[in-house]
Amino acid sequence: MKKLKIASIPGDGIGKEVVPASIDILNAIAEVHGGLKFEFVEFPWSCEYYLEHGMMMPEDGLKRLSDFDGIFLGAVGNPKLVPDHISLWGLLIKIRREFEQSINLRPAKVIKGIQSPLINPKDFDIMVVRENSEGEYSTVGGSIYQGEDEIAIQNAVFSRKATERAMRFAFDLSAKRNKHVTSATKSNGIVYSMPFWDKVFMEVSKDYPEIKKEAQHIDALAAFFVTQPSRFDVIVASNLFGDILTDIGAAIMGSIGIAPAANINVNGKYPSMFEPVHGSAPDIEGKGIANPIGQIWTAKMMLDHFGEEELGAKLLDCIEHVTGAGYLTPDLGGSSTTTDVTTSIIEQLKK
Amino acid sequence: MKKLKIASIPGDGIGKEVVPASIDILNAIAEVHGGLKFEFVEFPWSCEYYLEHGMMMPEDGLKRLSDFDGIFLGAVGNPKLVPDHISLWGLLIKIRREFEQSINLRPAKVIKGIQSPLINPKDFDIMVVRENSEGEYSTVGGSIYQGEDEIAIQNAVFSRKATERAMRFAFDLSAKRNKHVTSATKSNGIVYSMPFWDKVFMEVSKDYPEIKKEAQHIDALAAFFVTQPSRFDVIVASNLFGDILTDIGAAIMGSIGIAPAANINVNGKYPSMFEPVHGSAPDIEGKGIANPIGQIWTAKMMLDHFGEEELGAKLLDCIEHVTGAGYLTPDLGGSSTTTDVTTSIIEQLKK
Ligand SMILES: CC(C)[C@H](C(=O)O)[C@@H](O)C(=O)O
Ligand SMILES: CC(C)[C@H](C(=O)O)[C@@H](O)C(=O)O
Repeated sequence: MKKLKIASIPGDGIGKEVVPASIDILNAIAEVHGGLKFEFVEFPWSCEYYLEHGMMMPEDGLKRLSDFDGIFLGAVGNPKLVPDHISLWGLLIKIRREFEQSINLRPAKVIKGIQSPLINPKDFDIMVVRENSEGEYSTVGGSIYQGEDEIAIQNAVFSRKATERAMRFAFDLSAKRNKHVTSATKSNGIVYSMPFWDKVFMEVSKDYPEIKKEAQHIDALAAFFVTQPSRFDVIVASNLFGDILTDIGAAIMGSIGIAPAANINVNGKYPSMFEPVHGSAPDIEGKGIANPIGQIWTAKMMLDHFGEEELGAKLLDCIEHVTGAGYLTPDLGGSSTTTDVTTSIIEQLKK
Repeated sequence: MKKLKIASIPGDGIGKEVVPASIDILNAIAEVHGGLKFEFVEFPWSCEYYLEHGMMMPEDGLKRLSDFDGIFLGAVGNPKLVPDHISLWGLLIKIRREFEQSINLRPAKVIKGIQSPLINPKDFDIMVVRENSEGEYSTVGGSIYQGEDEIAIQNAVFSRKATERAMRFAFDLSAKRNKHVTSATKSNGIVYSMPFWDKVFMEVSKDYPEIKKEAQHIDALAAFFVTQPSRFDVIVASNLFGDILTDIGAAIMGSIGIAPAANINVNGKYPSMFEPVHGSAPDIEGKGIANPIGQIWTAKMMLDHFGEEELGAKLLDCIEHVTGAGYLTPDLGGSSTTTDVTTSIIEQLKK
């Protein structure tokens, strides 16, 4: 019996609806499989937790998480309760950074039964490998003067180590897919970090002669996501560019509510974290209509991560069976509830 | 008789086709109008010029340009001849910076007869006000160490002056449009420059109580360009965010070949520069099939800039008449040539 200890952090807003739904699904999968068991421990860390305790997680929060095989997180943030820079940097980004989850992996592909806003999306199937620890999200910077003379400076920091790690991850992944890596750059406008990024990409790509390589400026790349998304396989991008591209990826799939993600610790020192692209959507919280597919597809990425690719593929099949049959939440133009979609997927899994 | 002295710089690739076409149109407009005359002087500054002279423009290039009322530029760059960082920074970006063209103005709207890749684009009509002099495109930065320890640092520099200038421009513009300004931010991930950006936006917006204001993170904003572009009126964005958004704007219009732009010098010290969003497209150079509409619409922005808004509106009407009648270049799915489109617009102007 393979046992996986998973820390679940529903977080804020609809996280509290889609995480329990996805846990039901993971338990159903384990049951069907027979030789697999999940042990979930839930942590209530969230903006509400902050209001009570003055912090997003306890002092020893990271230590407690480090005992788990993986972290299954819903969504963090509710600006009406706690400013974003406190809630996100005190929980979500803190875990990404401290647990060296240096790769954020985010697929975008056509899903059966889900209408893309594009007239002709073709059969795109993209995997974005986003550098997840540095770049434009560095904490180096500051400002000088007050009032009309104020100047704010933000350092984007790109290390060879992190840049190369993201690129090798992308090439290795593409070798198992369609053998084509596109680098998101902007070296024609951003004259220090991006030429460095290009140089590392050129060098790393030499180790993968069988893989087609290409560099595209982020402006053109963002436009291509709309006009020709099927031209891409794996994309490697900086923290910011990956953030932007994956939201466009979610949009062309039909809803941010279905887009999954994995924050991968590649050195095995700490647990990885599985967390969909969408946020906490406080506007629809508690209505029972949150789309659970982003979180369920995220569960599939967790299965893949633990070597259960067959189960992962089966779960994605079941998702597509259910969306293909028209079980769609309101964000996708349907009238199904979170529970309708979840129970239909569980039924399909058990068939 | 109002006389306008315009420096024309066709530049590279299809710039050499669409600039002459647009000059024909501007001359036709002047003729129809009667009281207006353009005097064009052409400068051959380009990558080919670089190969001959070792620079993108002569030493006194800027001085010569400074005598003109405006600059009408096609496209710069041909990486097969000259690396982008030389060609762009030696001509295009040099003019933007040295002539303090601190605002890059770029519309995105539905044009009659041109098919958007979106199923339901509705009737979007967006104006992006892009900060054009600093931000992520600063020339402050560098790197340390070689090989596996190398670290590249890029400073994004945001001054109060430039930030506020872009924001006031956006609010003033929106006051004449639909009274809604959206600020492109990313203060949840980029923790020094973007909170500063947000603060200035909050402060400036207080001077415009009649205008609806909203801040959106760039990732969500990029996605909204795909899912709900009609929710926007004026968007104010940093140099990089404006660059990305306007390429998506071009994509949802149907082709980057139709997207226009103006680089505005707001203090009146130097000429402004009118230059479409598209590049030099060396792959279709010389085939006579380049879409001239980006450049022609850019000519309309130049007319507006010189106070000839009525003529500008008339020109846009004529463009839409011609696209609506199906005169479309191959990038738009048609089989018209650059000349077909241009002469049809001139005929329409003269009607
Ligand atoms: C060529 C490049 C430097 C330029 C920019 O990013 O400003 C272009 O993409 C544009 O938008 O005009
Ligand atoms: C909330 C925010 C800081 C975060 C990011 O930009 O990384 C989010 O947009 C994401 O993509 O997970």
